[in-house]
Amino acid sequence: MIARTDIVEKVKLNEVVIAVIEQAFNDLVQKKVSMPPIMRIDVPENNGEVDIKSAYIEGDDSFAIKISSGFFDNPKLGMPSANGMMLLLSAETGIPKAVLADNGYLTDIRTAAAGAVAAKYLTKRDSKVAGIIGTGAQARLQLQALTLVRDIEKAYVYGRSPDKAQQYKREMEEQLGIPVEPVSEAAEAVRNSDVVVTTTPATKPIVEAASLHKGVHITAMGSDAEHKQELSADVLEAADLFVCDVKDQSTRLGELRAATSERVERDAIELGEITTGKERGRTKDDQITICDLTGIGVQDTAIARYTYHYLFKELENQKVD
Amino acid sequence: MIARTDIVEKVKLNEVVIAVIEQAFNDLVQKKVSMPPIMRIDVPENNGEVDIKSAYIEGDDSFAIKISSGFFDNPKLGMPSANGMMLLLSAETGIPKAVLADNGYLTDIRTAAAGAVAAKYLTKRDSKVAGIIGTGAQARLQLQALTLVRDIEKAYVYGRSPDKAQQYKREMEEQLGIPVEPVSEAAEAVRNSDVVVTTTPATKPIVEAASLHKGVHITAMGSDAEHKQELSADVLEAADLFVCDVKDQSTRLGELRAATSERVERDAIELGEITTGKERGRTKDDQITICDLTGIGVQDTAIARYTYHYLFKELENQKVD
Repeated sequence: MIARTDIVEKVKLNEVVIAVIEQAFNDLVQKKVSMPPIMRIDVPENNGEVDIKSAYIEGDDSFAIKISSGFFDNPKLGMPSANGMMLLLSAETGIPKAVLADNGYLTDIRTAAAGAVAAKYLTKRDSKVAGIIGTGAQARLQLQALTLVRDIEKAYVYGRSPDKAQQYKREMEEQLGIPVEPVSEAAEAVRNSDVVVTTTPATKPIVEAASLHKGVHITAMGSDAEHKQELSADVLEAADLFVCDVKDQSTRLGELRAATSERVERDAIELGEITTGKERGRTKDDQITICDLTGIGVQDTAIARYTYHYLFKELENQKVD
Repeated sequence: MIARTDIVEKVKLNEVVIAVIEQAFNDLVQKKVSMPPIMRIDVPENNGEVDIKSAYIEGDDSFAIKISSGFFDNPKLGMPSANGMMLLLSAETGIPKAVLADNGYLTDIRTAAAGAVAAKYLTKRDSKVAGIIGTGAQARLQLQALTLVRDIEKAYVYGRSPDKAQQYKREMEEQLGIPVEPVSEAAEAVRNSDVVVTTTPATKPIVEAASLHKGVHITAMGSDAEHKQELSADVLEAADLFVCDVKDQSTRLGELRAATSERVERDAIELGEITTGKERGRTKDDQITICDLTGIGVQDTAIARYTYHYLFKELENQKVD
């Protein structure tokens, strides 16, 4: 078992991790992948849910099974909502190689890395201003991810709690050395920015078409369940290009659920089709582009394999127990 | 993490475990249960598959997620095909409580215990002769399970390998103190027995209606995948009562797949309906009864909870990592 503290110390959001996640999207298109739909166990009495994701990529010698939970009454008990771990299994024998007791850290990193991949292919090359909706862990990581693929000079942040937005401003200005300005409406962050990332568990749209402008890109990474939605249907209609990680899953758990015309779903492109060059990403500076990230098993397998085989490879010859 | 050796030392197939598993079947009918379909990841290059099962039973303070693998080329490498572990999660916070690194042992025990529950409700009360098809680990445990609920005085065993059948005879005679007679055909074991358990990974039927006789009960626990089948369709037609653990799953992965008439599926009863008294099991000594066990998540949660909270309760206040 590899403890969270050791994982946090070694695994950082950087160019290598972004390349690892980009490769996972490539694999999804170029290789045979066994990636079953998300398994979900509900614990309604305690406002809890557990999701299990997995994917095996043809040719790999290992693959991950991720168990992640959200128990939304935990904060009342002074505990974080989210918990989780990844198991890495040998794809040669099925024998467990490692338990990565990362408690959601690797999910945070691979999710942010996917945001970077989306930004790399879908934002204007000279994007300078970022708008972040939400003030949590992903709001921090997604902004950092943007700075790794674009020369971001300024960020706007919108959160329901002004205190949290102020704290976000302080931390991110310190970390990234760019000005971060809290704004009082999500629309203001959208209007001011070249690239927007929505990182909320919203169940009603927080971005409307009225605040869109030519050239903007929006990555919506919050929605990953039937009841969640960050973008209104008119945003999907207004976009020149709608991209998602996996179409089936975006339709079931992501922003495609809200699509009001068949055209949006029919024209939707998967991110891996763009990273592999099968489809084109942004082709003109004035396009409006959207990327919906619901989170997929190949990302988990990719980050778990990277963590174990690359960063902790001295453990490879030890047995898991 | 609790190691297999410690689990094997403490968890035994006995009346308590049978009661625990019977309660799991009751819960499935009497309580709200969140039990998603089995998640499966295929690794075709290595003739491998991983199944994930889980179930949360309303009101319980924990539940299990089981990861079990079958890599059927492992024996060529001198390793067993099957591997697996169970995770026990808090149903209050989602936090992992324990990793039961049982390597399939608890699955073996809960599967045999389900066989005992089926036998208790479906065999003639004075069943004395058992017929076992197969000579592996379940063939051993299922015979032992029968002796815990019926006064079995003799057993017949059929296996494709005469050597393995001889070894089975020696071991089981020693363990149970009853005569065990290898036979050269599955049909012979069926014809001679009051209760039959099929424990094979057969992909073609090994029991035909021609070998059935009045009063016989057959538990088929081998089939748990789309390509497996132990009972021919005419066995299902000939039965007075067809019982299974979960109808959906038996139709997808078990013996109900082979049903050639709608009647069989329509009249099929779930084991929990019988254990709770909602439906009747065997009512007459001359009935022919069948029970198809594909294996379900509530069994895993029940055995994992019993193991951890009851047998290892001194660990409850320790953290998993």
